Amino acid sequence: MKKFRFVVIGGGAAGIVTAMGAAGMGFSVALIEKNRIGGECSWTGCVPSKALLSAAKEARRIGRSSDWGLEHGGIVDTAKVMGKVRELTQLTADRAQTKSLLENSGVEIFFGTPRFLSANEVAVNGETLRGRDIVIATGSSPVRPPHIGLEGVKYCTNQEIFKLDEIPASLGIIGGGPIGVEMAQAFSRLGSRVVLFQSGPRILPKDDAELAGQLAGILRGEGVEIKLNIKVKDVAETSRSIAVNALEADGSMTETTVSALLVAAGRQPNVEGLGLEGIGVDYNSRGIKVNEYLQTTVPHIWACGDSNGKYQFSHIAEVEARLTLQNMLLPIKRKVDYFGAPWTTFTDPELSHVGLTEQEAIAQGLRHRVYRQQLAHIDRAIEEQEDKGLIKIIAGDGGKILGASVLATNSAEMVNEILVHRQAGFGLDKVSSLPHVYPSWGYGLQRAADPWLVDLGKKWFVRFGLEILRKL
Amino acid sequence: MKKFRFVVIGGGAAGIVTAMGAAGMGFSVALIEKNRIGGECSWTGCVPSKALLSAAKEARRIGRSSDWGLEHGGIVDTAKVMGKVRELTQLTADRAQTKSLLENSGVEIFFGTPRFLSANEVAVNGETLRGRDIVIATGSSPVRPPHIGLEGVKYCTNQEIFKLDEIPASLGIIGGGPIGVEMAQAFSRLGSRVVLFQSGPRILPKDDAELAGQLAGILRGEGVEIKLNIKVKDVAETSRSIAVNALEADGSMTETTVSALLVAAGRQPNVEGLGLEGIGVDYNSRGIKVNEYLQTTVPHIWACGDSNGKYQFSHIAEVEARLTLQNMLLPIKRKVDYFGAPWTTFTDPELSHVGLTEQEAIAQGLRHRVYRQQLAHIDRAIEEQEDKGLIKIIAGDGGKILGASVLATNSAEMVNEILVHRQAGFGLDKVSSLPHVYPSWGYGLQRAADPWLVDLGKKWFVRFGLEILRKL
Repeated sequence: MKKFRFVVIGGGAAGIVTAMGAAGMGFSVALIEKNRIGGECSWTGCVPSKALLSAAKEARRIGRSSDWGLEHGGIVDTAKVMGKVRELTQLTADRAQTKSLLENSGVEIFFGTPRFLSANEVAVNGETLRGRDIVIATGSSPVRPPHIGLEGVKYCTNQEIFKLDEIPASLGIIGGGPIGVEMAQAFSRLGSRVVLFQSGPRILPKDDAELAGQLAGILRGEGVEIKLNIKVKDVAETSRSIAVNALEADGSMTETTVSALLVAAGRQPNVEGLGLEGIGVDYNSRGIKVNEYLQTTVPHIWACGDSNGKYQFSHIAEVEARLTLQNMLLPIKRKVDYFGAPWTTFTDPELSHVGLTEQEAIAQGLRHRVYRQQLAHIDRAIEEQEDKGLIKIIAGDGGKILGASVLATNSAEMVNEILVHRQAGFGLDKVSSLPHVYPSWGYGLQRAADPWLVDLGKKWFVRFGLEILRKL
Repeated sequence: MKKFRFVVIGGGAAGIVTAMGAAGMGFSVALIEKNRIGGECSWTGCVPSKALLSAAKEARRIGRSSDWGLEHGGIVDTAKVMGKVRELTQLTADRAQTKSLLENSGVEIFFGTPRFLSANEVAVNGETLRGRDIVIATGSSPVRPPHIGLEGVKYCTNQEIFKLDEIPASLGIIGGGPIGVEMAQAFSRLGSRVVLFQSGPRILPKDDAELAGQLAGILRGEGVEIKLNIKVKDVAETSRSIAVNALEADGSMTETTVSALLVAAGRQPNVEGLGLEGIGVDYNSRGIKVNEYLQTTVPHIWACGDSNGKYQFSHIAEVEARLTLQNMLLPIKRKVDYFGAPWTTFTDPELSHVGLTEQEAIAQGLRHRVYRQQLAHIDRAIEEQEDKGLIKIIAGDGGKILGASVLATNSAEMVNEILVHRQAGFGLDKVSSLPHVYPSWGYGLQRAADPWLVDLGKKWFVRFGLEILRKL
C-alpha cells in the first residue's frame, strides 16, 4: 500500500489543478487516470473543436472573399483539414506538457481504472493507494440514448468525431446543445450537408432564448437544417449510409439519410464502477452529491468538475478544483462561488453568457431592464463585415449588472470583461464610462450601457435642482 | 447674433459627445464643423483603416489557407478592395446617423470655418454665435514635414490614402507610428511592396519596446521593409514614381523608388486660424494649454480631444468630452482621469497597451515584476494557428496592476478587461482566479497571472505556519 496525503481520481482540468496545486505546496499526491492526461476537453472536446471551428471560419471567409474584392475559387482537402485538427490538438498537448509538469511538481501518476476499497483506499492497476483526502474528478461522458438502435450503427460522439478521416458528405447530429451546434456549423462550412435533430423547441436551451433563436437563423442561413421538437426514434445502417427515423412535431415520421451521425445528446457524469455505493458516497445519474464546500456525503472525499453534475466547463472545473484545494487544506472552509458561470458556444458569431439571462430575471421576478445593442451599429463589426448579433445586458436597480448574453464575434472576451464588472460590484455607469479601446469589439458594451448613464444624468439634474442652470 | 449656452467647435468624437450631452440635458448648443460631422476618426482614420485591415487579414488568411487543407489560388481586385473600404466607411456613418442625432437632440449645426471674435463670440460663415461656455474640439491634422520637397510630389496622408483607386504596386511610408505601421501591414498584405522609413530606433515608440520589436519582426516576416534610424531628406516625383532619398544610420544616402507615398509622420493639433491669440487662450504647436479640469487659460473656454495635445484617440476624446460637460455644468469640478489611457495598434496581431509599460515602471523607479505569457502556450492561439505574441502584465507590490502590454490577436479586448481590474483596484489574484471562458483569448491573462497566485499560496503557507499540515 502506498500512502499519500491526497489521492486525486481523474487527470482532466479539475484533477490536474487540484493535484498540481497540492503537490506544489509540498504534499504527497497520487493522481489516477484511466486514459490520457488532459481529459475530455484537451483531447475530444474544447481543443479539437476549436481547431475545427477555426478551419471552418477560414473556409467561410474564403467562400465570401469576393465581398472584399478578393477573388478565389477553391476546394477543401477534407483529409488534410481533419489531419490538421489532430495535429493542432497534439501540439496543444505537447506545449502544455501537463504530464511532465505534474511529475515535476511531485505528483505520482497511476494509469488504470480506479475502484474504492474503503473511504480512504483506492485500488488501481494492482496497487492500493491510501489518501487522507480523496478528490473525485472523473469528468463526464457522452450520453448514448438507449432504445434507438445506436448499437447497430457506426456513429460518433465527440470522442470519435475528430478521428474521422475526412469531412462526410452529410452529417446528422442528434442534440442541439453546445457540442451539436458548434459541430453543425463547423461541418457545414467545410462542406457537409448537416441536419440537426433537437428534441426541444429551440437550440441551446440554457442560453438566452432570443439570441439562441438568432443563432439558429444564422446557421440556417448558412445551410444547416435544424429540426426542432423532433424525437429520433430509430437509426439504422444501410450500405454506406445511416437512416434516421424521427417523429416530427406534427406527428408524422420522417426518414433522413446521412453518411455520418454525431450523437451530442448531453453528457453524463462518470460515476459508475468507482465503488461509491460501498463507501457511503451518495450519487445518482446526474452526478455525485456535494455540499457547497464540494464535499461528498463522506466529508474527506470531494468531487469537483463534471463529476458533480453542476457545470460542464473546464474553466468552471478549475474554479471548483482551486476551492477544493483550499477547503482540504485550510481550517475555515469557503462556499463555492461560480462568479456568474460564464460560458461560450464558439460558433461564429459566438454566443456567450454570464449571470442571469433575461428569462431567468423574469422567472425570478427581479426588477430589471435589458440594455440592447445591435452589432449592426458597432463600428468594428461593420468594418469587418461581421455585423450580425446583439448585446443584451440585464441590469437591476442602480444599474447593477445581473447578467449579460452576447451574440457577437469575440463575445467570449466581452463576458470576460463583464465578469470583472460583476465581481467589482460595478454597474452600467462603469461599463459606459470606462474608455474601451476604439474600435474594439468590447466598445460595444460601452455603447449598450450608454443609455443608463444618460438617464442617470437626467435624474441627477432633477434631483439636485440643476435645471436652474439652464436658465443662467 | 445667436446666443447659446454652449458653443462647441468641431464635429469629431469630442465635439459630438459634448454637444449631444449638453443638448440632451436641455441646454442650447451650437456645433461648428468645417467639413463633415464625424471627424478624422470616422472618415479618414480609425474607421476606413480598420476596414482596410480587415480586407488585408482576409487576404492573408486566404494566402495561407493551404495550412488548413483549404487549397485556393486567387487574385486581388484592388479597385474593388478600395471601393469596399469606402463603402464600409460610408455605411458606418450612415448607420451612426450622427448628424440627425445631434439635430434631434436640439443641437444647431453650423458648417464653416470658425474664428473667435471675443472670448464669448465665434464667427462662422457670416454669423456670430455667442456662448457662455465654448468648447474647442478641433482635432488634429497630419504633420507634413517641411523642407523635404513634399510640395512637389503627389503624396498621401491618412486623409487621402483611402481615396486611392487601387492598391499601389509599391508604397513608401514616412513614419513608424500607429498609422504608418497599420497601413504598412494592410498594403503589404494586399499586394504592395512596402518600405517604411522610421527616423527613430524602433517603430511605435510609445509602446512597450520588446513587443514593438516583436511586431516589427512579424511585419518583416510578411515582407514589409522597415528602415530604422533613417532620415528622409528629399522626395521627388519622376514619371509615374516617387524617389525617396534618405540618410541611412551608417551615414550613406540611399534612393528608394516607390509608386505611392504615405506621410504618417505624426499629427499636429488644429489650433491655427482660430484667433486664439486675440482672446488670451494659450497654445503652442503641441496643442492648446489646459489645466486638469480641461479649462484653457480662459476659464469658460475648454479644450478636449486631440486639440489639447494630450492623447490622440477617439475613445480618450470621449472621456475628455464627458468630463468637460460635467465640469461646465456642475459647481464642483473634477480632474481628468485617463484610466491608464488604453490604446491599440490594430495590426494582426494587435499591439495593445494600458497603464505603465515595463520601461516606464523602470524609469519611474517603481518596484515591479513583469508577468509574461507567450501566446504560443495559449490554447486558443494554437488552435487558430495565430500563436505569435506575448502578454506582459506589469505588477507592483501586492500584485497591483501597474500596466499591461499585449501583442496578440484580440489584445484590444484584453486591455479592456485589464482596465476594469485597474479601476476596481484588483490585483493579479483576481486576474488569476476569475474564471475566464475557456478557450477565450482573455484566458491568456489568467495564465499570465497564475504564478502570482501560486507564490501567494506559498507565502500564506509559511506565514500562517501551515507547513505543519503537511506532516499530519
